[in-house]
Amino acid sequence: MTGPVQSIERAAAILRLLAGGPRRLGLGEVAASLGLAKGTAHGILRTLQHVDFVEQDATTGKYQLGAALLHLGTSYLDVNELRSRSLNWADALAARSGEAVRLGTPLEGSVLIVHHVFRPDDTFQTLDVGSLLPLHASSLGKVLLAYGAATVDSALESGLEAYTRHTLVDPKQLARALAEVREFGWAAENQEMSMGEAGLAAPIRGHGGLVVGAVGLSGPVERICDSQGQPRPNLITLIREASRAISRDLGAARW
Amino acid sequence: MTGPVQSIERAAAILRLLAGGPRRLGLGEVAASLGLAKGTAHGILRTLQHVDFVEQDATTGKYQLGAALLHLGTSYLDVNELRSRSLNWADALAARSGEAVRLGTPLEGSVLIVHHVFRPDDTFQTLDVGSLLPLHASSLGKVLLAYGAATVDSALESGLEAYTRHTLVDPKQLARALAEVREFGWAAENQEMSMGEAGLAAPIRGHGGLVVGAVGLSGPVERICDSQGQPRPNLITLIREASRAISRDLGAARW
Repeated sequence: MTGPVQSIERAAAILRLLAGGPRRLGLGEVAASLGLAKGTAHGILRTLQHVDFVEQDATTGKYQLGAALLHLGTSYLDVNELRSRSLNWADALAARSGEAVRLGTPLEGSVLIVHHVFRPDDTFQTLDVGSLLPLHASSLGKVLLAYGAATVDSALESGLEAYTRHTLVDPKQLARALAEVREFGWAAENQEMSMGEAGLAAPIRGHGGLVVGAVGLSGPVERICDSQGQPRPNLITLIREASRAISRDLGAARW
Repeated sequence: MTGPVQSIERAAAILRLLAGGPRRLGLGEVAASLGLAKGTAHGILRTLQHVDFVEQDATTGKYQLGAALLHLGTSYLDVNELRSRSLNWADALAARSGEAVRLGTPLEGSVLIVHHVFRPDDTFQTLDVGSLLPLHASSLGKVLLAYGAATVDSALESGLEAYTRHTLVDPKQLARALAEVREFGWAAENQEMSMGEAGLAAPIRGHGGLVVGAVGLSGPVERICDSQGQPRPNLITLIREASRAISRDLGAARW
């Protein structure tokens, strides 16, 4: 049994760096950020460019992500079972609730949005598929944390960033909130990531019963919550029903 | 100057294989498809799994694409200048023409769709972003071929597959069609990829004047073409105006 292939790990780290930082990076910036010799970083970047995972700007010589990643990324959606099993349920949930529906799965200390149905009205909305949400400041993330699909350590590692004055930034406060999620079976988020916005989510269990993702509603706080700041009971009912239906379709024995 | 890093090239080939083939592949299938020893393929797959580029199905042990690729792929869209400069023009073009608008850029012998605005009506449509279209059987692809953004060799290499009885499968026929595209400044496709569907596209020039992509309209043939099977003149005018506007925004000196 051999260990991981170092050059592939380094290539992946470079791609992550290009995805996360400013838009384009020079060779020196890439090398310094990852603690690599310039020659090593250059060899990896040239190979990544050769396979269209990276593009080099003709005028500045700086590097950015390449086109081949887009096709690989959307191909991932085709094979994601959580997403494919949820498509119809997500549409129905958006229609019944009148709110936007999103599906999240854990990825490296964040929530990755794998599906997004717009709120069924004519307002301007942008597609969140492929975006990462913070675990501690989203209802989807709290569900993943509460049921062990993502570890609290990974959330603490990323740091409990304060997005608004309502964000749970104290680990003890977060632990209490997660205990409540487990007690009630759903998670809420009230203006913890952006003022005026709220969300509500419930766990999706896969084959074997483990939580593999979360389904959530999100929108303006006055639509999601009542005047006491609590999620509206009819929305709680809808999200719980949807999460059970998807879990059953995924082959979970209990849901 | 060192050569490309072999293990990264192999890793990229495995990801492409998983994106293109059936949904999941076993270790033996991956190794055989790429002519690698099983041990070599296993080392690469384990590393790709470690960085979340690949996932292994718990029950079958087969491999599929991983979640990290989705985030990288959508991050690519944020840095794609062709796309960001075209967003407003594409919306306006869809509104004025009443048809779906797509933007394409060359990728490895195909057209990669980097933006898609739905036809502004309530019909069911699926998002094509991240999909690959054949160069020879799409109006976007013919534009890329005619202006050298993609090479005819790369189209011939992929093979001129006959999608319908209208597809241009004869290299000489294709060469004549491309000469016409250069003469008129736009390309049409009439039921060459799927019966009942047609398209129309024009080139987008980047800084320096080279063609870097194409913008196109597509939809039911009776909407795109007149009774003689020719693209409607008002749509030709709209697509030419849009392609010039985007080129100008990208810094093309002539458009």
